[in-house]
Amino acid sequence: MRNLNAVNITDAVIEQFAGCSDERLKEILNSLVVHLHGFLREVEPTEEEWTQAIDFLTRTGQMCDDKRQEFILLSDTLGVTMLVDAINHQTSDPMVSESTVLGPFYVADPPEAAQGASIDWNVEGEPFFVEGRVHDGRGEPLANVVIDVWQSDSEGFYDVQKELESASLRARFTTDDQGRYAFWTVTPSPYPIPTDGPVGKMLEITGRHPYRPAHVHFMLMAEGYETLVTQVFAEDDPYLDSDAVFGVKDSLVREYELLPPGKAPDGRSMDVPFRHLTYDFGLKASR
Amino acid sequence: MRNLNAVNITDAVIEQFAGCSDERLKEILNSLVVHLHGFLREVEPTEEEWTQAIDFLTRTGQMCDDKRQEFILLSDTLGVTMLVDAINHQTSDPMVSESTVLGPFYVADPPEAAQGASIDWNVEGEPFFVEGRVHDGRGEPLANVVIDVWQSDSEGFYDVQKELESASLRARFTTDDQGRYAFWTVTPSPYPIPTDGPVGKMLEITGRHPYRPAHVHFMLMAEGYETLVTQVFAEDDPYLDSDAVFGVKDSLVREYELLPPGKAPDGRSMDVPFRHLTYDFGLKASR
Ligand SMILES: [Fe+2]
Ligand SMILES: [Fe+2]
Repeated sequence: MRNLNAVNITDAVIEQFAGCSDERLKEILNSLVVHLHGFLREVEPTEEEWTQAIDFLTRTGQMCDDKRQEFILLSDTLGVTMLVDAINHQTSDPMVSESTVLGPFYVADPPEAAQGASIDWNVEGEPFFVEGRVHDGRGEPLANVVIDVWQSDSEGFYDVQKELESASLRARFTTDDQGRYAFWTVTPSPYPIPTDGPVGKMLEITGRHPYRPAHVHFMLMAEGYETLVTQVFAEDDPYLDSDAVFGVKDSLVREYELLPPGKAPDGRSMDVPFRHLTYDFGLKASR
Repeated sequence: MRNLNAVNITDAVIEQFAGCSDERLKEILNSLVVHLHGFLREVEPTEEEWTQAIDFLTRTGQMCDDKRQEFILLSDTLGVTMLVDAINHQTSDPMVSESTVLGPFYVADPPEAAQGASIDWNVEGEPFFVEGRVHDGRGEPLANVVIDVWQSDSEGFYDVQKELESASLRARFTTDDQGRYAFWTVTPSPYPIPTDGPVGKMLEITGRHPYRPAHVHFMLMAEGYETLVTQVFAEDDPYLDSDAVFGVKDSLVREYELLPPGKAPDGRSMDVPFRHLTYDFGLKASR
């Protein structure tokens, strides 16, 4: 293992991993080395470019804290997150809802809220009523499904970006015995992914915009079913065909219907215009 | 750009970089996306494995500070650094010295020292006299070449790892008009690359040892010549054929000759055994 050159170094590195007793880890590292070296042989980076790459990765790691995950943003904007999602959640069953990226703003164990509750704590915006049903692969309603919901406000900011003292536009619901869920919120808006870090800089210097179409995030968890991580997008959004994180699927696009003042679907009396989204989710039984 | 699957997402990401006006950056990112997606399609990571990878990269970035560069260690241990070195410094000219990795312990602008000086400030160890000449591609001596030297102590630690108040075993020399350099130091020892971070953990769980054979680092800088970053390894070292960072080349291996007490090559009178290394460097004219 001396005198390694641009050709034989790849096998030399793989040989050093030969003693790895975790066969899956060995498989991953061997493939990583082959593809990473292949990339480098193709682009032939200068030493200055290598230094820039080291610096970019370092700054990306250092941008991360308990409320910000810049490496997930990098994964998202390079299509890696959606590729991993596609690899793990390929479905052609129309009764099973499609998944999409988790995104960086999920917070585990959000506040629990009752059926039909408002979750627009401490924020203002256009009222938005969201409701639907959860069913299994045969269309039968699923009760007691835990649904975590989170979304941006009408300026495009999540609660964790605003350093609010408590959660807002983020809650946990549980479906009733007819599989129903419902809540009041405010209409989300398109928003840029955070642009003040290395990933934002990458988008800027490559001429890419950082916007995502308006959406509501959902995570559905039920015993005996695969957890569904998904989003429902607004039908008229200008960014549906250029989502910065490649997450849009036609089955996840719905009208956020604008309704005049009057009686809302849940009987609430509205004196301002509001929007209404209905979305039913189908869960896949776990293997 | 909707309904992306594990096959068509790669082209969709590349398409988003189409507007990048920096052609070189576009070329690098396109190649990165192709090879990165190819890697992922090959290993088909689970979402848990993806999360572990994000976490590994994050911790690697957060391990870095002004004295520690964990991403360079990662690059080193995956053979990336030596591959980039090979791409940029292929030489078949026997009059030009071979290069190898910079390593994480270089510090810019080390203290200047006079020809023949001792640089073993605040450390103990077996005395070691290092000398040689610097020449051009035709063998003509090169005067006024700046030589930065750095190395571990006899326990395998660099000054920056020991939080010494001043530099030690690290200095800048300048060749005289016959191209000569010379200094006294202590004999370096094999050492493990830092193992208290994510990269050390990777080596551990894959069954790789973290050791590098004993060496002295050199960086040679002269107007009109390519900067040479290299190391000279001890001939009898047990790690020459399993260097954790893949840096050993036969042309860079020399005997660290053990000599009895008596008169040293520079006339110094030694009352203990000491070692002696002679290494001549050939610099390549810059294009
Ligand atoms: Fe989002
Ligand atoms: Fe070293």
